Amino acid sequence: MALVVQKYGGTSVGTVDRIRNVARRVAKTYDDGNDVVVVVSAMSGETNKLVTLANEMCDFPSEREYDVLVATGEQVTISLLSMCLNSMGYKAKSYLGHQIPIITDSTFSKARIEEIGDRNIREDLKNGNIIVVAGFQGVDREGNLTTLGRGGSDTSAVAVAAALKADVCEIYTDVDGVYTTDPRIVTDATKIDKISYDEMLEMASLGAKVLQIRSVEFAKKYGVVVHVRSSFNDNPGTLVTKEDEDMETVLVSGITYNKDEAKISVMGVPDKPGIAARLFTPLTTANITIDMIIQNVSNDGLTDLTFTVPHGDFKKALKAVEETALEIGAAGVRSDENIAKVSIVGVGMRSHSGIASKMFQVLSQEGINIQMISTSEIKVSCIVDAKYTELAVRVLHQAFGLDKKDTRAE
Amino acid sequence: MALVVQKYGGTSVGTVDRIRNVARRVAKTYDDGNDVVVVVSAMSGETNKLVTLANEMCDFPSEREYDVLVATGEQVTISLLSMCLNSMGYKAKSYLGHQIPIITDSTFSKARIEEIGDRNIREDLKNGNIIVVAGFQGVDREGNLTTLGRGGSDTSAVAVAAALKADVCEIYTDVDGVYTTDPRIVTDATKIDKISYDEMLEMASLGAKVLQIRSVEFAKKYGVVVHVRSSFNDNPGTLVTKEDEDMETVLVSGITYNKDEAKISVMGVPDKPGIAARLFTPLTTANITIDMIIQNVSNDGLTDLTFTVPHGDFKKALKAVEETALEIGAAGVRSDENIAKVSIVGVGMRSHSGIASKMFQVLSQEGINIQMISTSEIKVSCIVDAKYTELAVRVLHQAFGLDKKDTRAE
Repeated sequence: MALVVQKYGGTSVGTVDRIRNVARRVAKTYDDGNDVVVVVSAMSGETNKLVTLANEMCDFPSEREYDVLVATGEQVTISLLSMCLNSMGYKAKSYLGHQIPIITDSTFSKARIEEIGDRNIREDLKNGNIIVVAGFQGVDREGNLTTLGRGGSDTSAVAVAAALKADVCEIYTDVDGVYTTDPRIVTDATKIDKISYDEMLEMASLGAKVLQIRSVEFAKKYGVVVHVRSSFNDNPGTLVTKEDEDMETVLVSGITYNKDEAKISVMGVPDKPGIAARLFTPLTTANITIDMIIQNVSNDGLTDLTFTVPHGDFKKALKAVEETALEIGAAGVRSDENIAKVSIVGVGMRSHSGIASKMFQVLSQEGINIQMISTSEIKVSCIVDAKYTELAVRVLHQAFGLDKKDTRAE
Repeated sequence: MALVVQKYGGTSVGTVDRIRNVARRVAKTYDDGNDVVVVVSAMSGETNKLVTLANEMCDFPSEREYDVLVATGEQVTISLLSMCLNSMGYKAKSYLGHQIPIITDSTFSKARIEEIGDRNIREDLKNGNIIVVAGFQGVDREGNLTTLGRGGSDTSAVAVAAALKADVCEIYTDVDGVYTTDPRIVTDATKIDKISYDEMLEMASLGAKVLQIRSVEFAKKYGVVVHVRSSFNDNPGTLVTKEDEDMETVLVSGITYNKDEAKISVMGVPDKPGIAARLFTPLTTANITIDMIIQNVSNDGLTDLTFTVPHGDFKKALKAVEETALEIGAAGVRSDENIAKVSIVGVGMRSHSGIASKMFQVLSQEGINIQMISTSEIKVSCIVDAKYTELAVRVLHQAFGLDKKDTRAE
């Protein structure tokens, strides 16, 4: 008998009929002899409705009360799913964040889980109950309701799985698992059977939207085996787990892309200590997330500095940078909104050389100019002209042998 | 400086704009130098929507989960009202039932309040906060959410007022207060300025729907002064308070009626011990509430037994009674669904005689036949043909001097 944590997202519980489907799947897992803890999101659309209501009420809703409001979405789902399981003859019991409790810090709207009580749930499991947990929500040490930010139910599920030392945390979604790249671009994209936490973190932060990044960090920290799979069929999905020797034999596990960035270059910057700080401090103050930063080798005491920011922050960032550029006597500022970041990810890179240069070669063969490069231990990212995004993804996917089935077995 | 508890019902908080109005009224009370605790219901229509959802989910929703579901209605309102007050520059903080805590027994859907913590609220009041409390909900000693039944927010408000020893508990509604009778029937009906707990209990249980009965019982038990008034204007409403000498000078305070009953008579019942129990036990088992019971004096060892039940239970009751009548050898069963109960209520009756006979006389002058009579210390109820309801109410209202203004000063 295993202890299984299952998480169903908003689409999977979007209607009364879909909740009924989820109940059947949960019941089957229970009938197969497992202890089952289910974590659910709000019914799709509900959270948006609540946010609209808050915005109608006032321009800047206070954060504490905002969390009280949006937390009702998951409360509705857990009660409905529990009712349904009860009516099917199962013992099921809903749990709100504060009833478990899921203790978080007091950062409303993006609280971090600090501690999870397992006594209440364990007791109910022992008595044969199926446990239905409200995702996305917690409670701080003063008893205020908190929420974990969009996609927070993934983190709730992994955290509960960690606290209960569950055998597996199944994340049900509307796709079959994590793919080698976006199947909308590459029809030959294949589902990855097994991926390491670190690769998943890179994949998630580079644009694959299957799992909330923080849930993967949590899974890695506590060694929770995460199984990403579809709630619409019984196919096995993708296992996110700790790195093993098999994984290292694969050079590249996936190709990702991100079109949501813009590039800003400051030209002819005097190469003196403290200049970078002066340039970036106003951006940090304005809460703008800077992604890649490239500083060229200095030439005659002058250097060029280029970085990328999210599209949404582009105008604000550009204005701030232009002001600072003037102050520090830079030669000028250039910008480009039509860029894309294309990345290859794989733990195999650590033990294999030549991966990066192969990437550059493949892109160059297609006449794609590389504007910026950034690397980590397990990924290489290139900034290219946005119009080449799909082409770049396709040729890289093919070049690194991801098109074929059973890449892993090579 | 006073401590004021205000309760706003679903209609008063039915839209974002109405919540804004409530916020203004609350803010004014605070600006006048009072400590303010606000208790709110769900936005009108919301609870019904949630109930519909539960019924779509399954036929007999489990009671525990049903309460988890419907409790979200008030949670939405407290967050919106608190946000609004915050955006107006006031310190406001929402409280869910479990955050206060409002401890109840574990009778889901109609839980009774057992205890209220006042420490958290007092602390926040001391720090200048306006407190916004979710009505209708509580938590049992095991931490399960509970609800108090329809209209339960009145009880929440009175109970919180009792716990905090508030100076007054203002119940805001869509009418100006408690009237001498239904103004839709008697246009000359006047608002009652002051009424005793006992009178209010009779008025409430006899059909005046302004206050939940349990809230009046609570107010009486703890001596909470309740002020029923309109949320749409600033007129003084009706004070529900402990009996004083003024009140006794008024013979009749109000006239009520109830058309929601049906009458069943069992004829020729053998007048033996245990017969009444045999007749009524099946009804009690079926959860049918019996209101009036009349047993005539025995004649030749046979008696007639008549009682009333709510319309909704009539068919079920009649079937049960016909079976029992056969078993005990009664002569037959008669029934009438077209009846109404008309009542006069007033603490003045205790010290004045002749009130009941005046009532009978007034009805007889209009040719209205009295089918059953029942009395308590402070009320007389008569069952009459339903078609005479309005006529009976009107003539009684006039006969007991309620038509004129300032009856109280007589």
